[in-house]
Amino acid sequence: MNDPTIPRHSCPIARTLGVVGDQWSVLIIRDAIYGLKRFDEFQSSLKIAPNILTQRLKALVADGILERHPYQTRPLRHEYVITPKGRDLQPVLWALMAWGNRYMCPEGHLVDLADPATNAIVEPVMVDAATGRPLSEGVRVIPGPAASSTIIDRYGAARL
Amino acid sequence: MNDPTIPRHSCPIARTLGVVGDQWSVLIIRDAIYGLKRFDEFQSSLKIAPNILTQRLKALVADGILERHPYQTRPLRHEYVITPKGRDLQPVLWALMAWGNRYMCPEGHLVDLADPATNAIVEPVMVDAATGRPLSEGVRVIPGPAASSTIIDRYGAARL
Repeated sequence: MNDPTIPRHSCPIARTLGVVGDQWSVLIIRDAIYGLKRFDEFQSSLKIAPNILTQRLKALVADGILERHPYQTRPLRHEYVITPKGRDLQPVLWALMAWGNRYMCPEGHLVDLADPATNAIVEPVMVDAATGRPLSEGVRVIPGPAASSTIIDRYGAARL
Repeated sequence: MNDPTIPRHSCPIARTLGVVGDQWSVLIIRDAIYGLKRFDEFQSSLKIAPNILTQRLKALVADGILERHPYQTRPLRHEYVITPKGRDLQPVLWALMAWGNRYMCPEGHLVDLADPATNAIVEPVMVDAATGRPLSEGVRVIPGPAASSTIIDRYGAARL
């Protein structure tokens, strides 16, 4: 789903949007992580036009987010299974969910996350893996080891 | 940027995508959090067509992500400032960044996050705010207090 008009060469966010920067793609990934696999299941869940679903599934397979497997031979039918790479997009979905619950659901949370062992409600928050400290607005973006000169110019001393 | 063809009434992820489900909108939010404010600054950063930028800025203002303020009167010019609601989308951006660094940057990280006090590299990870435990694949989606019957049918006993 790369949009060639968007220059994404120097930013990992922009590059990721080349894979998940489309509403349907994100909803397909959501459903695939939930366990939907078959064309009809996605179509029924999303009320999406078949030609658009076909196109998005193909792109997600090409990007390594879904894997296509035959589940029936006469006639040949395929199912689409989330890959580990696709499953690693869960933090993006959790972040979208948390923001949506907070800002887009005046009637209250539509869904919540729960700990499967304790059933306690889980409130997703982003922290530094090393220290456990919540990421605050003060966290800085700095050029990475493979940063381009554009990135270095922008983030050399800047704060996000 | 609501796409009326996507049924988003029962899912906070889908509702959020109505605001940020467009690649340009996410990149504008990224730049606005970084500190860009003026039309020309966004245009120069994004190489975006003026008519598309105008449209996206207008939508982001309507959705409460940006605030429009006059900064000059002759001629009248406006700048666009990220709101607290918009800034709260940072976890979405951090999650997109982390995934992009991992999967879309074979040459190495393009940017990193750093603690402004210590300059230590920050690795963003999603945890439960109450327990500090990393959210694993085992976390369950459960119906929230305002869940529709569709959500209850789907998530009553299911795991994400």
